[in-house]
Amino acid sequence: MTASPAFERLAIVGIGLIGSSLARAVRAEGLARTIVCADANADHAARAKAIGIVDEATTDPAEAAAGADLVMLCVPIGAYADVARTIGPALKPGAIVTDVGSVKQAVIDAVAPHLPEGVHLVPGHPVAGTEKSGPDAGFAALFPGRWCILTPVPGADEGATRKVADLWRACGMTVERMDPGHHDRVLAITSHLPHLIAYTIVGTATDLEEHLRQEVIKYSASGFRDFTRIAGSDPTMWRDVFLNNREAVLDCLQRFTEDLTALQRSIRRGEGDALFDLFTRTREIRKGVLDARQA
Amino acid sequence: MTASPAFERLAIVGIGLIGSSLARAVRAEGLARTIVCADANADHAARAKAIGIVDEATTDPAEAAAGADLVMLCVPIGAYADVARTIGPALKPGAIVTDVGSVKQAVIDAVAPHLPEGVHLVPGHPVAGTEKSGPDAGFAALFPGRWCILTPVPGADEGATRKVADLWRACGMTVERMDPGHHDRVLAITSHLPHLIAYTIVGTATDLEEHLRQEVIKYSASGFRDFTRIAGSDPTMWRDVFLNNREAVLDCLQRFTEDLTALQRSIRRGEGDALFDLFTRTREIRKGVLDARQA
Repeated sequence: MTASPAFERLAIVGIGLIGSSLARAVRAEGLARTIVCADANADHAARAKAIGIVDEATTDPAEAAAGADLVMLCVPIGAYADVARTIGPALKPGAIVTDVGSVKQAVIDAVAPHLPEGVHLVPGHPVAGTEKSGPDAGFAALFPGRWCILTPVPGADEGATRKVADLWRACGMTVERMDPGHHDRVLAITSHLPHLIAYTIVGTATDLEEHLRQEVIKYSASGFRDFTRIAGSDPTMWRDVFLNNREAVLDCLQRFTEDLTALQRSIRRGEGDALFDLFTRTREIRKGVLDARQA
Repeated sequence: MTASPAFERLAIVGIGLIGSSLARAVRAEGLARTIVCADANADHAARAKAIGIVDEATTDPAEAAAGADLVMLCVPIGAYADVARTIGPALKPGAIVTDVGSVKQAVIDAVAPHLPEGVHLVPGHPVAGTEKSGPDAGFAALFPGRWCILTPVPGADEGATRKVADLWRACGMTVERMDPGHHDRVLAITSHLPHLIAYTIVGTATDLEEHLRQEVIKYSASGFRDFTRIAGSDPTMWRDVFLNNREAVLDCLQRFTEDLTALQRSIRRGEGDALFDLFTRTREIRKGVLDARQA
């Protein structure tokens, strides 16, 4: 790129799957002059430096954030308040703080109170991921063709919001804006409930007697393995998602349980028509996913 | 192959995903001199002939089975009894009848009474598949590296069982023997419960208001899409699986529901440690699946 980079100093706090994917994409697209990361795990920070995806690495978020024009929070949501409290005093006027968390209202509540006057908060969520974790798991191709949702708060600085949108667009994402509460309800069903269900079914299998558990692994290609992939996701990240999107998740779960109970009754009563009818309707949604090129 | 084929005439009843995959694999490996298929759907039968994966095609199972030394049932389980009743009188002495169904005890109950003296029943289940259906969906590479479970009944002819085992081995599968009831319990958790859950969650999304449903499709890459893939499977096949493995499926479902209720309570009470503990334990099963090369 011949133009000067969009950001002088990008600070990525948390260099896991998403953080390290972003570092790679930003590097590849020349979007920041300097990329610095902070990670509480010193090995991860050092590793990010060693593999050359960041210019500087530290375990101190304030050190990374000092002088940054963009700070990207990529830590589990439960750590947001502490990180915000730590970096707050180090942020320069006009700095933008954004994030990649799967929950948005709780993030605003946790971060906003700790940011000084003149610093802009732009909550964001690149809807992409894999079940892998850590700085080696990231890859720049994670983002292209996927959606990024920004949930700016009322009165947010339009220029700051646009800069964050441009960053994700440059990484290949399509950017949408949404109300934080609406985001949390949509993601509860598309992401949080599926993870909850996958964790549960794999947990149910974990509790089987040893011999049966080995057979479940052996014959997992018949459906179970897809759930194990989802249930192999980062435990800390997902604990924090469920604790921070409690209402929406519990509401979805309630609907799901009602539907499951109805299906259970159909099986017990041998109501083949009801089963066939449901299994036919669900195919339409699959077709929608394929048509939307999200498969 | 220079050796003479293992079977003179192989009859495949039902030329869907599994039947057409088998036809392709048998052809590729030269395992039968003549492959004939029967399918109640005349278009599917004609298509199989047109694309050259079978030598003869008919809508009449008795016509296909007449003179066959091996008859492979690849229709939904609910159709087994009718097919067995139809082909019974046409079967030659010494013929082997086997199948690919996901439930085994119910298959034995449905088929065995209709087979004449001197015909051998060898129930089987190649544990492989995709969510696709129909003769064009099949491919020979579906089988290699996967397991095939045979559940011979007491007093079954050992030579017949071995011939079926050899067929699946030649298609690249590893063959195991199992008690039919045990098979049904193992598959209830590895395959039937995952499909039931996936159908339910996609059904829950189907019932959302139109606007929200479109957003669920749009952001499905965050977890939901994996469930839509599973829930895109053949409705008739799966209706029959649930109706024919009722006890084992309901038992699994009961355990799953108890575990889900416990998790729901942990979320409601904000018990982060309990969530973290479960999400960590499930990673072990994922590791097992990867180690077993079933991912």
